[in-house]
Amino acid sequence: MSRKILIVGGVAGGASAAARLRRLNENDKIIMFEKGPHVSFSNCCLPYHLSEVIEDAESLVLMQPDKFFNQYRIDTRINNEVIDIDRTNKKIKVKDLINNKEYEESYDKLILSPGANPIVPNIPGIENINVFTVRNVVDIAKLKYFANKSYENKVTVIGGGFIGVEVTENLREAGYDVTLIEASKQIMKPFDYDMVQILHKELDDKGVNLILEDKVVAFEDGHTVLNSGRKIKSDVVIMAIGVTPDNKLAKQAGLDIGENGSIKVDHNYCTNDKDIYAVGDAIEVYNALTHRKTRLPLAGPAQKQARAVADHINNIQVRNTGFIGSSVIKVFDLNGASTGLNENMIKELDINIDYEVARVIPSDKVGLMPGASPMHFKLIFEVPTGKILGAQAIGKGSVDKRIDVIATLIKFGATVEDLKDLELCYAPTFSTAKDVVNHAGYVASNLLNNTFKQVPVTKVRELVENGEYIIDVREENEFELGHVVGAKNIPLSQLRDRLDEIPKDKTLYVHCRSAQRSYNAVLALKQLGFENVYNIAGSFLGICLYEYFNDKTKNRKPIVTQYNFN
Amino acid sequence: MSRKILIVGGVAGGASAAARLRRLNENDKIIMFEKGPHVSFSNCCLPYHLSEVIEDAESLVLMQPDKFFNQYRIDTRINNEVIDIDRTNKKIKVKDLINNKEYEESYDKLILSPGANPIVPNIPGIENINVFTVRNVVDIAKLKYFANKSYENKVTVIGGGFIGVEVTENLREAGYDVTLIEASKQIMKPFDYDMVQILHKELDDKGVNLILEDKVVAFEDGHTVLNSGRKIKSDVVIMAIGVTPDNKLAKQAGLDIGENGSIKVDHNYCTNDKDIYAVGDAIEVYNALTHRKTRLPLAGPAQKQARAVADHINNIQVRNTGFIGSSVIKVFDLNGASTGLNENMIKELDINIDYEVARVIPSDKVGLMPGASPMHFKLIFEVPTGKILGAQAIGKGSVDKRIDVIATLIKFGATVEDLKDLELCYAPTFSTAKDVVNHAGYVASNLLNNTFKQVPVTKVRELVENGEYIIDVREENEFELGHVVGAKNIPLSQLRDRLDEIPKDKTLYVHCRSAQRSYNAVLALKQLGFENVYNIAGSFLGICLYEYFNDKTKNRKPIVTQYNFN
Repeated sequence: MSRKILIVGGVAGGASAAARLRRLNENDKIIMFEKGPHVSFSNCCLPYHLSEVIEDAESLVLMQPDKFFNQYRIDTRINNEVIDIDRTNKKIKVKDLINNKEYEESYDKLILSPGANPIVPNIPGIENINVFTVRNVVDIAKLKYFANKSYENKVTVIGGGFIGVEVTENLREAGYDVTLIEASKQIMKPFDYDMVQILHKELDDKGVNLILEDKVVAFEDGHTVLNSGRKIKSDVVIMAIGVTPDNKLAKQAGLDIGENGSIKVDHNYCTNDKDIYAVGDAIEVYNALTHRKTRLPLAGPAQKQARAVADHINNIQVRNTGFIGSSVIKVFDLNGASTGLNENMIKELDINIDYEVARVIPSDKVGLMPGASPMHFKLIFEVPTGKILGAQAIGKGSVDKRIDVIATLIKFGATVEDLKDLELCYAPTFSTAKDVVNHAGYVASNLLNNTFKQVPVTKVRELVENGEYIIDVREENEFELGHVVGAKNIPLSQLRDRLDEIPKDKTLYVHCRSAQRSYNAVLALKQLGFENVYNIAGSFLGICLYEYFNDKTKNRKPIVTQYNFN
Repeated sequence: MSRKILIVGGVAGGASAAARLRRLNENDKIIMFEKGPHVSFSNCCLPYHLSEVIEDAESLVLMQPDKFFNQYRIDTRINNEVIDIDRTNKKIKVKDLINNKEYEESYDKLILSPGANPIVPNIPGIENINVFTVRNVVDIAKLKYFANKSYENKVTVIGGGFIGVEVTENLREAGYDVTLIEASKQIMKPFDYDMVQILHKELDDKGVNLILEDKVVAFEDGHTVLNSGRKIKSDVVIMAIGVTPDNKLAKQAGLDIGENGSIKVDHNYCTNDKDIYAVGDAIEVYNALTHRKTRLPLAGPAQKQARAVADHINNIQVRNTGFIGSSVIKVFDLNGASTGLNENMIKELDINIDYEVARVIPSDKVGLMPGASPMHFKLIFEVPTGKILGAQAIGKGSVDKRIDVIATLIKFGATVEDLKDLELCYAPTFSTAKDVVNHAGYVASNLLNNTFKQVPVTKVRELVENGEYIIDVREENEFELGHVVGAKNIPLSQLRDRLDEIPKDKTLYVHCRSAQRSYNAVLALKQLGFENVYNIAGSFLGICLYEYFNDKTKNRKPIVTQYNFN
């Protein structure tokens, strides 16, 4: 039996489906249509061309049409735009953009992989400014060419999501003056506000002009004008505020549309037409943690969906366990990764769930080894079940490794007790005997069992302003290099000898550098007759990182005598 | 209630137990005895002092006794050897090695963390050679001092386990001429023979004189004499053939002894005396995959055991899920990690299990990104259940990340289908959209479903010698740079046009560079009417790496026209 299978759109979704379809059936006729000049390229690598980490834009193109034909017998038609679907007669109308001719192709099965379009809002004056978006190889080559014309160019990136931040980083690495504007109070929504401050600081440290909580209202005389009245010289503007599913064809064909304009699909990524499938950035997926439909424009899920569609067309049963969303980004010297739910998502989606947070800052490898550095790790788990809901990690080391482990655990409905048990690889160059994730599991288990109480770094300003009793259990020399205003220094090593200095009737808030010594101090104090004792999760390192960027940009009075980030 | 808890031995087991005991109970009297001068040091970092990655031997010492007292109120007695246990009267006899005095201490609970001793066999002539072992800070400082006396020193390391290989690497990095002698046919037992050849080659490439399958029979005139008659100049000899549990005290006290002289413990790491616990390298643990007792001298498990003991003493229920054994090692530019069962173990332990192997060599990150390199990955899974039994990974990149994910999966009894579903972090600097472990899952699932058949690289020599029909589907330019002797080159891109060149009556063995193109070719050939088609798992890259070291050292005729390792 030979069927005719048409695929609209290439890249992660379409091209993966095509290759898998061929592997499963040598006889099917497979045609892939792509309106642009490239059917297979590395989207995720595009920003790295700007810094010349990837020097040649052509190398971003992974496979040309002739290779698809030679290796897979897939008829690949670039510069061919599918403009209409005739569901009744099972055929599509195609426009050959080179010859400007239209033609039809019939299908047995049709796979839509149209992707998503960058949103370019109609801001006053936008027609008079050099606006770029980053969707494909042509876009990035154009942007690079234009920016290169003068290194004096001032670049403005609008939108602090993955693409905005990666473009910012790569242009900054290339030596440009870059302003990154984000309308909300933080970049990178996969991270909670307390964690993302570390990335805000990194951008600031590397000379990016990061503007938060300010909205672009107009473009005037080569400047970006913000709601606050600020004007930013902008020779080049990159619009990266988000993407919208390319649902034009699907809508036109009367296919069901779901969340935020995405294409609705079932368990097998089939639309409401049994012969039409859809995959990739254009569809809605099921989030296994929120139990809601959502968009998830990531390459990994697109490939999995493509494979599922090819399987289903070939009568192989598909397993669809939903998605949880795992991602990672490099931001200059730091890496940030996340999976599952964060506190923001729980609040924004109004998910009715009780949760608690374990926040630890262990060393990512044995402290003696070169390159060891603190890893900021935040674990979110359900109360009282201990079920792991999500995690975020930021640091110089292998944050992706730790988040991959958590992502794996979440798929199995694992709890914080499971986290303690994990037997991970250890050697001093790679980790510590008690790895970051084990450590988070221990802290989470203690919280679940009420072994101790904690407050987050986000509450410390309030504690200071209210004159609460804060004890810093670091050694005196550490205290002298910077400490929380008004904190009392009683090193853990002196604690048991200086108990009489501590009031019994006050609530005590204890911290050290990274909350490990303070954890010991909290447990000791509890047992020594002090009733209300809280550990400050994140401790001094977390407090400094949390406060720094806001203090600097909002001209706020610091709550520490001196920042210390080591 | 205040109890008196004594701990024999520090480091990962004893010191971790002590700290946890204190956190759980402020009132207990805790005394830790250590016969050496250091109670807390980083065992695993010891070899790195030899290369001066860790310059100062003193920095290997993590905590001195005064810090244990100040921070934890733990009475720590170094240079104090526990020489006897009186179980009836619940007291121990201690010898103060400095004052050469003996004294007694009573206990409510006793924790044994004696560790294991390096094995130094009584080889003829050993008394006339400079033999070192590597167990503690004193050992490594002595070795370094002695080796440093002359850089002309020829160093011989005996034993190719973790310590032997790490010492070899670090001494070689420091510039010494190093010979590594291993009596069996391979170093590093956590890896199967086919995988470990990659590490053999790395040692050879870096100038280590690696001698396999030869046994030390004597030391004569500053030389190590081998069974083969070879004599190796050996100014310094490091004995690293293995360790034996330090069970002297336990035996003397009549505690039950288990596997290979290790101390027998129950679910809670309690010995047959309800007031005596044991943890660390000296005990036997339960392997959750082999269902047998074994020794597992690793730091991570020791810490988990220590925590469990402290918990049990404080009436917190312990969860003991057994161990699977995860480990990682750096060998010059390569990293190697493993978890669970390997083929060797299954055979050696005579475990009655049907299994299959998925062997893949994907890029560890997007090929365009700097530093991308092939990762050799071997997954072992049960047939017909698909249950994951173990994995090994070797490459320049994050092998530990992939093995940590597999180790996590094994804890949940996951199958190869679960592996396909995993949503791992992806960005081009970290991985690929279809990660190494997803990839292995796909191949494993195909094998389980009989989608294709395969032969391992270990069989290729036999195929060549028997004149079997081998098809190399790489492009012509790749073929010209080196290929399997007698192989026919039909690039995948020409395959469907050249079917008439391929005999229908012969068994076909297909390979490419890394088995991805050949996988496509095998599926196409099967569907195009060729019945007996096998993919060569590991393909040309795997063949070259597998054959190279043996060809070179055994003066064997290569089965490839030219090696190619890229």
